[in-house]
Amino acid sequence: MPGLEIELGVLERRAREAGLQLVLLFEGFDTAGKGTLINRLIHAMDPRGFEVHSLRRLTRPERERPFLWPFAVRIPPRGRIGIFDRGWYRRVLEERVHRKVSRKRWSRAYDMINAFERQLTDDGALLVKFFLHIGKKEQARRMKALDENPATTWRVKKADWREHRHYERHLKAVDEVLARTSAPQAPWTVVAAHDHRHARVVLFRTLIEVLKRRLSEGSGTVAVHGRDKPEERGGEKHRSRLDETDLTLGLEREEYGRRLEESQQRIYELQHRLFRKGVSTALVYQGWDAAGKGGNIRRLTASLDPRGYRVVPVGAPNEVEKAHHYLWRFWRALPRAGQMTVFDRSWYERVLTERVEGFAPEPVWRRAYREIREFESHLADHETVLLKFWIHIDRDEQLRRFRERERTPHKRWKITEEDWRNREKWEAYREAVEEMIRRTDQPEAPWHVVPGNSKLYARIFVLETVVAAMEKRA
Amino acid sequence: MPGLEIELGVLERRAREAGLQLVLLFEGFDTAGKGTLINRLIHAMDPRGFEVHSLRRLTRPERERPFLWPFAVRIPPRGRIGIFDRGWYRRVLEERVHRKVSRKRWSRAYDMINAFERQLTDDGALLVKFFLHIGKKEQARRMKALDENPATTWRVKKADWREHRHYERHLKAVDEVLARTSAPQAPWTVVAAHDHRHARVVLFRTLIEVLKRRLSEGSGTVAVHGRDKPEERGGEKHRSRLDETDLTLGLEREEYGRRLEESQQRIYELQHRLFRKGVSTALVYQGWDAAGKGGNIRRLTASLDPRGYRVVPVGAPNEVEKAHHYLWRFWRALPRAGQMTVFDRSWYERVLTERVEGFAPEPVWRRAYREIREFESHLADHETVLLKFWIHIDRDEQLRRFRERERTPHKRWKITEEDWRNREKWEAYREAVEEMIRRTDQPEAPWHVVPGNSKLYARIFVLETVVAAMEKRA
Repeated sequence: MPGLEIELGVLERRAREAGLQLVLLFEGFDTAGKGTLINRLIHAMDPRGFEVHSLRRLTRPERERPFLWPFAVRIPPRGRIGIFDRGWYRRVLEERVHRKVSRKRWSRAYDMINAFERQLTDDGALLVKFFLHIGKKEQARRMKALDENPATTWRVKKADWREHRHYERHLKAVDEVLARTSAPQAPWTVVAAHDHRHARVVLFRTLIEVLKRRLSEGSGTVAVHGRDKPEERGGEKHRSRLDETDLTLGLEREEYGRRLEESQQRIYELQHRLFRKGVSTALVYQGWDAAGKGGNIRRLTASLDPRGYRVVPVGAPNEVEKAHHYLWRFWRALPRAGQMTVFDRSWYERVLTERVEGFAPEPVWRRAYREIREFESHLADHETVLLKFWIHIDRDEQLRRFRERERTPHKRWKITEEDWRNREKWEAYREAVEEMIRRTDQPEAPWHVVPGNSKLYARIFVLETVVAAMEKRA
Repeated sequence: MPGLEIELGVLERRAREAGLQLVLLFEGFDTAGKGTLINRLIHAMDPRGFEVHSLRRLTRPERERPFLWPFAVRIPPRGRIGIFDRGWYRRVLEERVHRKVSRKRWSRAYDMINAFERQLTDDGALLVKFFLHIGKKEQARRMKALDENPATTWRVKKADWREHRHYERHLKAVDEVLARTSAPQAPWTVVAAHDHRHARVVLFRTLIEVLKRRLSEGSGTVAVHGRDKPEERGGEKHRSRLDETDLTLGLEREEYGRRLEESQQRIYELQHRLFRKGVSTALVYQGWDAAGKGGNIRRLTASLDPRGYRVVPVGAPNEVEKAHHYLWRFWRALPRAGQMTVFDRSWYERVLTERVEGFAPEPVWRRAYREIREFESHLADHETVLLKFWIHIDRDEQLRRFRERERTPHKRWKITEEDWRNREKWEAYREAVEEMIRRTDQPEAPWHVVPGNSKLYARIFVLETVVAAMEKRA
């Protein structure tokens, strides 16, 4: 062991210097010795480099979000190690065995778990999963030993013996998990945990091996991987959702006032009803510069109770955010049960600004379409109301608004050099928008192209669309 | 109102550009209209600039930390606005009225609240506190109205009517709060909330006034304030805690082995006992470069359950941390009930490295002594076991260890140019260490100077000190 410990310590330091993001997951039968093993492991490592997450009992805010949320927000940044003592398999292990979720939901969870793991490894993370196995008899023996020691007797509860009696059911779920979630980039290592020393050696050897392999591949630095480019749908002519949009649509000020008031009253009531039902809402606003997103959001939220919604403005990521998967900050912003989050720009920036401006290389933004669909499927699975709006205006209208902003003293700050530069790239953005809508428009996460030349029309359009969607769930 | 809204919008933008950290607190009687008022306010502001925190019901992780924790970790960074719908007065309002805490504890809370607010404003934050007042009759009228509306009737519960009957008790607590927590830098604005329109105007006018004043003071940029320099104790000769330390102390390897094993066994048991009692532990490690902090921590934690402790290594703050009060990141790292956090370096870096290297201006690090005492008093109030260790070695021993590190291949990474540079500043650091110990050694947060020339001795010293302290609380 001492040799293995030194070797792992050296590799761990090299991994850190290389900016490697290392995710270690430990699952296993109760009393298999996860705690002891993890402790042994972290003592071979620099305490500056890792964090241990023990997520046996979830807190209320954690339970109120999609089932992968508590884990997604805790994935370590590049250059660090996250050690998960039990992880994102809860739904297909405990919850399944205890019949806390329907078969349909835990079956679906496999796809979501696999997608989650692939996203991590595509982004360059090294994911290593251990399952600590002991037999039923050995478990009984260990539980008795714990029970008989006065210092640990409190750890063995009646419920634990009940679990023990259901050992076979657990075993069946475990077998399925191992079969369905072993992917080349996220393999399981099953550790025979009857013998502590043996388990330790297997753990250290496995880690040393995967670290060595990865570090030799990357020759020191870890690149962001660009695999899994989704299939192009070939060269067929696509319909243009933007061209189909009738920009001449408008509204009389009087009718606007009436419908605005009605919808605002209604959305206030719906906010309360969905709050009580625990149904969350996520709204995504994207649109051309000067399309009127800000004013639109303001009308939407004017009557809402501020304790129940939050507007999340999305700008360039900060240094902490940059060290994570780009979806990380959006995971963090997801609403609690019954709450609403309004994204003023969103995860779609990757396939818009980052694509057009070249901030993300092509394989990365191409990969993002699928990542986004998968991300949104977590919201759908959690029964979140999810609506996406592209506020559309034409180029002439944009020019008119830019000029108007320049003329109005208290609006002048809104218009910058960058806006003029972006305007020059109208066609490139247009192409990106069309592809984005085509590839991420799904029944449970639909895109609405909002005719925006008339601000009044656009506001009512969004408000009434949101009201209708909330209505269905109230 | 429209004029006030535009004016506030303009000021808010200027404040953001100036990097102003704005903290708005709303307290008030139930049904006084905080929600409506806050919503009106945020609609005059750029959604990119603020966050609303509604902290009526605390989550379990929030309740398991010092009472100011949920608020301290949510204070906005510079350039942003935090709006608190109910805030850190919970203990002297609800908890006091409902007799959930002893008189002694809520009385002490006043000092802690005042210190907390002073720390924020010393750091450059602009803090504005509103209390929304309505009379008992008006409250009854509004509760009835809510109750009679089918959409809102669920909001009025039996408990609310009970609160209403205790209006006078609440009023008494409020009066005391207003009297005891109005400071020049953190004044209360009492808003007569019987009339919504009046309340709105008062709110907007007050905010416009304070923002104008602050922005004109700072002529655009907001400086970090350097007030409240604590009193020097004059020129008297201080005893030197470092000189008093007997560095010749050592331990035979055999005795070391025996005592190590005993303490490790004991600390493992104590960890479980304190976990069950919900008693948290915070350990601070500071010391000279190469004093052996890392190895010492490893021996301390070797036998612990990794699910119950966390080692927090403290390096230079990242960009997000820099935009907050320097204690913010330590607030965030405080342990939950029954957990242990080991700080490998800590908040003391401000009065050590930052002082000696000139990263913090003198008024700032001077102020830090008091800030640290106050911060640690939160831990004491929360009945956290808090111990602070300075691992002391002499200059010769440091030289020996530096040279040894250079000779040993797998330790060479530990020694850098910077270590040699720091070594040149030994005397300046020494002075800083002595002053730090003198000014922050308190009964509930004692400093232990650990004789560190013998690593074995130092490890046993720390372990046995920690065991003894935990023992008292087990």
